[in-house]
Amino acid sequence: MTYRAPLREMQFVLYEVLNGDTVLPELPGCEDATREIMDAMLTEGAKLAENVLAPLNTSGDREGCHYDTESKTVKTPEGFPDAYRQFAEAGWTALAGPVEYGGQGLPHTLNTLAEEMVCSANLSLGMYPGLTHGAVNALTSYGSDELKEKYLPKLISGEWSGTMCLTEPQCGTDLGLIRTKAEPQADGSYAITGNKIWITGGEHDLVDNIVHLVLAKLPDAPGGSKGISLFLVPKFLDDGSRNPAFCGGLEHKMGIKASATCVMNFEGAKGWLIGEPHKGLQAMFVMMNSARLMVGLQGLGIAEAAYQVSRDFAKERLQSRSLAGPQAPEKAADPIIVHPDVRRMLLRQKATIEGGRALAYFTSMQLDIAHKAATEEERQQADDMVQLLTPIVKAFLTDEGFFCANDGLQLMGGSGFTQDWPVEQFVRDSRITRIYEGTNGIQALDLVGRKLGHAGGRAVKSFFAMLDNYIKTEGGVPFGDELKAATGRLQKATMWLMQNGMGDREQAGSAATPYLRLFALTAIAYFWSRMVATAEQALADGSTETDFYAAKKETAAFYMHKLLPQTLSLLAEIETGKDSLMGMTADQF
Amino acid sequence: MTYRAPLREMQFVLYEVLNGDTVLPELPGCEDATREIMDAMLTEGAKLAENVLAPLNTSGDREGCHYDTESKTVKTPEGFPDAYRQFAEAGWTALAGPVEYGGQGLPHTLNTLAEEMVCSANLSLGMYPGLTHGAVNALTSYGSDELKEKYLPKLISGEWSGTMCLTEPQCGTDLGLIRTKAEPQADGSYAITGNKIWITGGEHDLVDNIVHLVLAKLPDAPGGSKGISLFLVPKFLDDGSRNPAFCGGLEHKMGIKASATCVMNFEGAKGWLIGEPHKGLQAMFVMMNSARLMVGLQGLGIAEAAYQVSRDFAKERLQSRSLAGPQAPEKAADPIIVHPDVRRMLLRQKATIEGGRALAYFTSMQLDIAHKAATEEERQQADDMVQLLTPIVKAFLTDEGFFCANDGLQLMGGSGFTQDWPVEQFVRDSRITRIYEGTNGIQALDLVGRKLGHAGGRAVKSFFAMLDNYIKTEGGVPFGDELKAATGRLQKATMWLMQNGMGDREQAGSAATPYLRLFALTAIAYFWSRMVATAEQALADGSTETDFYAAKKETAAFYMHKLLPQTLSLLAEIETGKDSLMGMTADQF
Repeated sequence: MTYRAPLREMQFVLYEVLNGDTVLPELPGCEDATREIMDAMLTEGAKLAENVLAPLNTSGDREGCHYDTESKTVKTPEGFPDAYRQFAEAGWTALAGPVEYGGQGLPHTLNTLAEEMVCSANLSLGMYPGLTHGAVNALTSYGSDELKEKYLPKLISGEWSGTMCLTEPQCGTDLGLIRTKAEPQADGSYAITGNKIWITGGEHDLVDNIVHLVLAKLPDAPGGSKGISLFLVPKFLDDGSRNPAFCGGLEHKMGIKASATCVMNFEGAKGWLIGEPHKGLQAMFVMMNSARLMVGLQGLGIAEAAYQVSRDFAKERLQSRSLAGPQAPEKAADPIIVHPDVRRMLLRQKATIEGGRALAYFTSMQLDIAHKAATEEERQQADDMVQLLTPIVKAFLTDEGFFCANDGLQLMGGSGFTQDWPVEQFVRDSRITRIYEGTNGIQALDLVGRKLGHAGGRAVKSFFAMLDNYIKTEGGVPFGDELKAATGRLQKATMWLMQNGMGDREQAGSAATPYLRLFALTAIAYFWSRMVATAEQALADGSTETDFYAAKKETAAFYMHKLLPQTLSLLAEIETGKDSLMGMTADQF
Repeated sequence: MTYRAPLREMQFVLYEVLNGDTVLPELPGCEDATREIMDAMLTEGAKLAENVLAPLNTSGDREGCHYDTESKTVKTPEGFPDAYRQFAEAGWTALAGPVEYGGQGLPHTLNTLAEEMVCSANLSLGMYPGLTHGAVNALTSYGSDELKEKYLPKLISGEWSGTMCLTEPQCGTDLGLIRTKAEPQADGSYAITGNKIWITGGEHDLVDNIVHLVLAKLPDAPGGSKGISLFLVPKFLDDGSRNPAFCGGLEHKMGIKASATCVMNFEGAKGWLIGEPHKGLQAMFVMMNSARLMVGLQGLGIAEAAYQVSRDFAKERLQSRSLAGPQAPEKAADPIIVHPDVRRMLLRQKATIEGGRALAYFTSMQLDIAHKAATEEERQQADDMVQLLTPIVKAFLTDEGFFCANDGLQLMGGSGFTQDWPVEQFVRDSRITRIYEGTNGIQALDLVGRKLGHAGGRAVKSFFAMLDNYIKTEGGVPFGDELKAATGRLQKATMWLMQNGMGDREQAGSAATPYLRLFALTAIAYFWSRMVATAEQALADGSTETDFYAAKKETAAFYMHKLLPQTLSLLAEIETGKDSLMGMTADQF
């Protein structure tokens, strides 16, 4: 498998479209994030992804992880420990970590760009530091100073790794059903007892110690999700003794086979409370919100990898003549990239990836602004946008990551289905991204149930204001008619939800998934229009990158003509309401 | 893995909607196809699928096929030879075969119903007899009497199996690029030399002899696809000697791992011409047309299997409370089937499967009528319909088979992604059905490039007449407004193609895939309306199966409200034409 980090594309979005090289260094604490520094980091990240991570993607899938029943340990595939060591030593685990604990304090946005490259190259390997990142966030926000001092430095340096232990056999989405118990001990610690499943990186051989963040219930816990607390449970204790938090086995999965998905048994393991009793979900959501953005980037990263492979295939593979007559008469047939239906599958990938990249990077920059801007007003406005867009980035980019990988496979015909090419693995690996960190159905419910109505709809109003102001730009905007029409449909759907979903939550639930998709398509249309405006300006300014900027206009046209019309049917789907979903009895299925 | 053949659903479509128990026995030669006989066969087929084939589906996937380099033979998974023997001994390979060669001469439609059950239960196992069926068809239509007498009886009895050897490394879709050579020999046979890839059942241990149908070029062949001939090449010759047609290895694939996909090396193997020199593609298309229908049924079969598993899961799995308040207050949570978004995923499967089943069975009955009706006029009209609908059945039902399996996986959350459940295998297995027997993009080109314009558009006119007559039924038809709107969109798209696609083949190519989908959605809306009319009549006649018939109305409502609106965006996608697809240069991708 070969992968080339799309640095030019990433720079286009970060600098030219979103002005990241101006906005980010102006944030207090982010002064180092100059274009020079960011470019240097991206170049180094690209090398690591291309030369160290990508070459292990296929072999990791074939070999998988292995569990040893005797020692209850997990062996990752050949080359993984060394690749992880290089990743950590190069400072990638420390990128956005707080400076006082050894982090580099750089913007979260840079992590986002790194995540894209890592997940294009090797999703399974990227999972290990990805989960650590979430643990660092939760610990930074809610941990006691003692816990922070003890655990953050080594998690940030990558010497240790972290996990999120939520799921149990009887509870996935519904965390109120958790049974794992935490008994207070005389020394102020807790004895944690229970079984967790689907724990990514619960046990492996990449690091010396693993720090589990575990949801459990205190003896006096109220019922349901309001009675859950969060605990830190290390694999090894201070004195080097083994804490009884053991891996009981590995899941056998469709994909991400090189990522160790563990059953974890806590047998009275020693743990410490993070944050307040019974408020564990709050702390966990800090982990999950940034994790959800990152999972969206996983979808984007895999789509990019599939696009590169299938695009190169389409330029090489000779099959049939163009419908407009031979294009390569000297060859036995034309390269299949001449065929409209092959282009349809390539452009669906290209238009979705590039538009999705703008949406994801924008959201990441808003996250940095929300954390670090000078004024409360700026922070709040940015946080509104992050809250609103996070479920959309997660669900839409992972759905599309899977669909794009499938389009890549499809245009390669039988070759795509064989393991001689990496695309079938991209399809299998990307499949889980639509499920974990909250299924995409849950993301849609989060959007319509929590985010839309929050603070009187402040966030969605601010989003529509951003679009309206843009559309009203003097002299018009590229593809203004298409953007205006889609925005109108999204507004209509939003109004429908306000009128029907407030009093009847099943109406909101019935509209949730098509609404999220309608929102995403419209938001990305906005970014496509802006990207074309940027490209036109660059050409007007005399740029010599004519192919690069011309491609932006062509790709945007495809997006507006071939993908954005889905907003028509999504609105119709929403407006027919819940009756045809809820009418059947369970027995009639 | 458990599977229950949906006999009641199959009978509903075959007898109540399509009147198969009247139409089929009236066809000359099909007098035996009474309802009694058909019911008996379906019941037996269901038992075989449920008790013999389904139990081997998971184990077959895990074990896969194994190639022995020394003997150049292939071992199928444990239990496959015995299951295949039971399948053949029960007469399933002989069902629709010509009586004079030992077949039962029953309608092709019965094969279709059997194929659905077989592919729900075990797609890999079903591939072996499936390919034989195609070989029997080609041989029956084009083989010399000598070849027929020698090969048909044992192919029909299932003692031997057949293959279709088309693809070579440099040619898949574009068969004009074939390099395999056929040299005439003094005894009237030919020496076949060349390499074929992706040959399903090219070598295996289920039967005593394998009969390869091989595309190759004669020494005096004209260039391109007009210079291809078809040859019969048996593994073992009459005297029992080994013909040098060897398996050189197996493909490693994403799915259908228990189906042996072989590299075949023909090293001067003895073969005999089928049909006329240079007219091999014509004979091959006889195989492929019925094969394409059957592949559509594979998509349907897998969707049904995924639906059954995910529906049962949704009724059992407890997670969160209904948005309308607790539905099972005595339990820790409600079964997830109460949630609108879970229902959306279940109903997408149910509505697509049941509507697709009606479309597929209808097309199969038309195939029987095309072959066997008493008058030329009836035969021609039915053949028109088969030609028109075959690419639609193939492409739409395999696309949807994959999407339905994915919806099944999705609603099961993390469980769906693990190999503890069979759904991830359904996703992997179904993926190839969108590619083989002509990719779905090729099906769409076949529809717009060949089928629409054939004989002055006779077939599509006859299709529209069928819909128009139905819509005009006195007193109206169920969901008449929705059906009329969709039909109007399809007519508009057809007109657009007539005006733009005739003079500019790239316009036709650009519209092909969305047009096929628009056609399929509209055709299925027609069958859904008819199914509701049938259900309403049954209820009015006092049927006590109130749940069964009520579910038809509810499912149809979902189809009309939530799926059929896609026709809006598909029409818009078509009408924006080719510019945004063809504008980019290859370098700009």
